[in-house]
Amino acid sequence: MTDSTLAPDSDQALYALSPEGRKLLFTEAKTAYDFSDKPVGDDRLRAIYELFKWAPTSANINPLRILYVRTEEGKQRLLTGVAQPNQEQTASAPVTAVLALDTGYPEYVPLLAPSNPQLRPMLEANQELRESHGDFNSTLQAGYFVLAVRAAGLAAGPMKGFNAEAVDKEFFPDGRWRSILLVNIGYPGAEAFRERLPRPSYEQAVQLV
Amino acid sequence: MTDSTLAPDSDQALYALSPEGRKLLFTEAKTAYDFSDKPVGDDRLRAIYELFKWAPTSANINPLRILYVRTEEGKQRLLTGVAQPNQEQTASAPVTAVLALDTGYPEYVPLLAPSNPQLRPMLEANQELRESHGDFNSTLQAGYFVLAVRAAGLAAGPMKGFNAEAVDKEFFPDGRWRSILLVNIGYPGAEAFRERLPRPSYEQAVQLV
Repeated sequence: MTDSTLAPDSDQALYALSPEGRKLLFTEAKTAYDFSDKPVGDDRLRAIYELFKWAPTSANINPLRILYVRTEEGKQRLLTGVAQPNQEQTASAPVTAVLALDTGYPEYVPLLAPSNPQLRPMLEANQELRESHGDFNSTLQAGYFVLAVRAAGLAAGPMKGFNAEAVDKEFFPDGRWRSILLVNIGYPGAEAFRERLPRPSYEQAVQLV
Repeated sequence: MTDSTLAPDSDQALYALSPEGRKLLFTEAKTAYDFSDKPVGDDRLRAIYELFKWAPTSANINPLRILYVRTEEGKQRLLTGVAQPNQEQTASAPVTAVLALDTGYPEYVPLLAPSNPQLRPMLEANQELRESHGDFNSTLQAGYFVLAVRAAGLAAGPMKGFNAEAVDKEFFPDGRWRSILLVNIGYPGAEAFRERLPRPSYEQAVQLV
């Protein structure tokens, strides 16, 4: 381990991803709080999914689902479930993705993991395992999703500040999908970005044995 | 929305990330189950962190911590907590990252979110909020970590099949860090990759309003 702080560009040999890619996804990307009027086409929303979907989950269960809200009417329905301080940014975004756990995800397991025929019945018989696997993997996938939005050239504004119960009642009344995170999506507006906040240092966050 | 299936390379204009970057992180990356003898230097482990750390968390709480296990002795201690079918791949990886939630993460909140002085006392007073924020955001960060490993040119093998209680007892006896995922890290071995499994279709996973 070097003692000096390693800037991301100090040694190109340490990364396979290009400097442009590192900036786009990590080092210069920032959460957006304000969006321009430039629209986001449905083809781009699909492109996000077609990239995002390949990142790994436990036993390939892929329990995350996405509701893209991009009409005026949809936005109005969504805003009733968004906490006041987050309403303005949500209203300004051309699209808000409601990321949701499909609580019925074991239904797809035979298609997704055909070599593991005992997995679906095991998940269906064991509520605690089904829920812990669903919660963990849908949240892991939410992380992949944020980076895939950036890979599609869009700014992402993930938000935990919303009323999941209200959003679920409005959009998922049968109770099968359960919202876990909102992600505003679009092009940055004039007031998009706040000052970069610090991160835990390597010494605070990492141990080696 | 186009009706045809969109291949990730069918329209370069839909992505800001280069085709090479998309292949590296998403479309051609696969979970590794076997690793070569090629070592991974501590500078590269640090490079993963210096990239990973920038991806966003709620209120910038950043609760994920990393224990890199890369000595023979460390590996032996770790293997006692790894389920039998996963022992071989773990033993073959030059490094295994133990991703852990720091249950004491509110301690760092004043440093990470200086403009939000009420957040630390609020988290310390409300166990349910503290735990749900910690669980959700550490798991979100685990997703970022997997992609950052790939960005550093390494193969990742994330594993949920381990005994978290045993691993925590061995490495985190004071109970503050709680392991949530193991990620084997290294260069692919001869038997690294399995056949690509399918993913939910766009129509199965996505709704639009």
